[in-house]
Amino acid sequence: MAEVRNKQVVLKEYVTGFPEESDMDIIEGTITLKLPEGSNNEVLLVKNLYLSCDPYMRILMTQGPSYVTPSITPGTGTPLRGYGVGRVLESGHPDYKKGDLVWGITTWQEYSFVSLDQSLFKIEHTDVPLSYYTGILGMPGMTAYVGFFELCSPKKGEKVFVSAASGAVGQLVGQFAKLAGCYVVGSAGSKEKVELLKNKLGFDEAFNYKEEPDLDAALKRYFPEGIDIYFENVGGKTLDAVLLNMRLNGRISACGMISQYNLTQPEGVTNLTNIIMKRIRMQGFIVSDSYHLYPKFLEFILPHIREGKVLYVEDIAEGLENGPAALVGLFTGRNFGKQVVVVSRE
Amino acid sequence: MAEVRNKQVVLKEYVTGFPEESDMDIIEGTITLKLPEGSNNEVLLVKNLYLSCDPYMRILMTQGPSYVTPSITPGTGTPLRGYGVGRVLESGHPDYKKGDLVWGITTWQEYSFVSLDQSLFKIEHTDVPLSYYTGILGMPGMTAYVGFFELCSPKKGEKVFVSAASGAVGQLVGQFAKLAGCYVVGSAGSKEKVELLKNKLGFDEAFNYKEEPDLDAALKRYFPEGIDIYFENVGGKTLDAVLLNMRLNGRISACGMISQYNLTQPEGVTNLTNIIMKRIRMQGFIVSDSYHLYPKFLEFILPHIREGKVLYVEDIAEGLENGPAALVGLFTGRNFGKQVVVVSRE
Repeated sequence: MAEVRNKQVVLKEYVTGFPEESDMDIIEGTITLKLPEGSNNEVLLVKNLYLSCDPYMRILMTQGPSYVTPSITPGTGTPLRGYGVGRVLESGHPDYKKGDLVWGITTWQEYSFVSLDQSLFKIEHTDVPLSYYTGILGMPGMTAYVGFFELCSPKKGEKVFVSAASGAVGQLVGQFAKLAGCYVVGSAGSKEKVELLKNKLGFDEAFNYKEEPDLDAALKRYFPEGIDIYFENVGGKTLDAVLLNMRLNGRISACGMISQYNLTQPEGVTNLTNIIMKRIRMQGFIVSDSYHLYPKFLEFILPHIREGKVLYVEDIAEGLENGPAALVGLFTGRNFGKQVVVVSRE
Repeated sequence: MAEVRNKQVVLKEYVTGFPEESDMDIIEGTITLKLPEGSNNEVLLVKNLYLSCDPYMRILMTQGPSYVTPSITPGTGTPLRGYGVGRVLESGHPDYKKGDLVWGITTWQEYSFVSLDQSLFKIEHTDVPLSYYTGILGMPGMTAYVGFFELCSPKKGEKVFVSAASGAVGQLVGQFAKLAGCYVVGSAGSKEKVELLKNKLGFDEAFNYKEEPDLDAALKRYFPEGIDIYFENVGGKTLDAVLLNMRLNGRISACGMISQYNLTQPEGVTNLTNIIMKRIRMQGFIVSDSYHLYPKFLEFILPHIREGKVLYVEDIAEGLENGPAALVGLFTGRNFGKQVVVVSRE
């Protein structure tokens, strides 16, 4: 069987500080479009269509143990690893056949061998944009669902704060909070994002954290009675200000701390005694622990999407060669909504 | 009815930094041993026998809202407030009669009017030392029980770390951990305390944190596989080192952060991303929220005390006038076990 071109995005070296495009290389290799011998029905060959840019990927670019082991090894020609949507080209497994669509962990190249594990899902519903399976119908959607509904048990009328609120996860948490009858405020990093939250996504209020020299004062303005639920995406100074404003029996769903991933020395959080004084529960979670809930989640979310009751904003970069810039942009807030990279539309 | 002498401990002014004996005054007033008119069966007149010195009392000495409101108002002649054991001298309530023994929130003086609320308990078992109702059979005992068993759901073989391990609460957490079949290590602030933990209270290991310049390294020595449960009594640097050493799905019971109470600027905790990466649940709690479990707790603990299977170490200061020194000593670690002040033995 003939070899075909296989463009890849690889890491040049471990990243310190903010990642830059120059930390990655686009290389052109070739691939034989055939499953390796002895792959034992455990691997599919897929053509990658959409790749997902997610903050956690930054952690993979640092040497050492992480929660999403193993790190990406730089300098070996191994492409980046992340979530994506692909079409099956070859399968030895009876549940998957050529032409099937899947989402799950893949690699940043045109064609990938992907493992059939608990993080790979067959796509059954194609009346919605396929790219949604990198976002609202994929890992970020499940993250918002599990982190908000399962971990925070929201009650009608409760006050919810979401940081990184226009991001892949945050925009959904806010909309879920409204579905649950909560009051919800989001923070984001630009005027346009704030407008999006308030005018399109139904947040009660939103503010630009970059224009708030005193986050504590900003939170007191929007939450005069305090915060019941905080969906934590950023960490650091924001968490510190939130702790001062939590109410009794508050819950913090600790999903991510993007503000800390690029720092050699993380910011110190000084207000943790509030966890005791206010009986706060802070729960870290990794969504892949809850993938058994995916069918339940789909049943919940698909009707809302079809009826236009939950919206999803995507920022689409065209072409694998624009992947590094798209990924790097997450950490400066350049993306407007869920950052997706299109490798191929078919 | 004649007036009698009523010695009191009052706060002279709000405390900043470490509390000192000179922040308090011993004053001699008088009291008429009679319930006030219109006290509506809601108040008892008690003679205070034992007073409890607890770290949370430091928080009451600072101006501003706290979790145990209201603060103690200095300069008004109102005595300190805290837990204690007393004998009823007068009661209008049918459930309490003269001579009954009670424990709960009282004030630092010879005689107090105490409120009949959910924090006042009649003492039914007097075959154990009465002072135990300021410790193992009172608020600290319940704190250890709720914080360890209810919040951490320990499983046999799990690895438990307790800070301030020889204190009123910590010494019990360690013994409860052994009853639950766990491996338990405690940290304390002197050689004698470490010996107590290892040789008398059954801790598997213990160390003097003052002799460990690198807490992270110390924890790695005692927990090569990591910590499943951390019972948090101190906060700050210790919490930061613990976060680096927690295992997946670890639980932190946040009971107190004594190391932070005297700091104008609390220490920054920098390793919070571990909460996400290790799916940690950190739960703050206030024991008074769980006082409905007290009967269940007594049923559990009394047999263990009577059979000598759970020990309790007390540090007894004689006389109300020695109360300020005893209380202040908590924050320099001068106490050896639960710090009690005897006002009167009968």
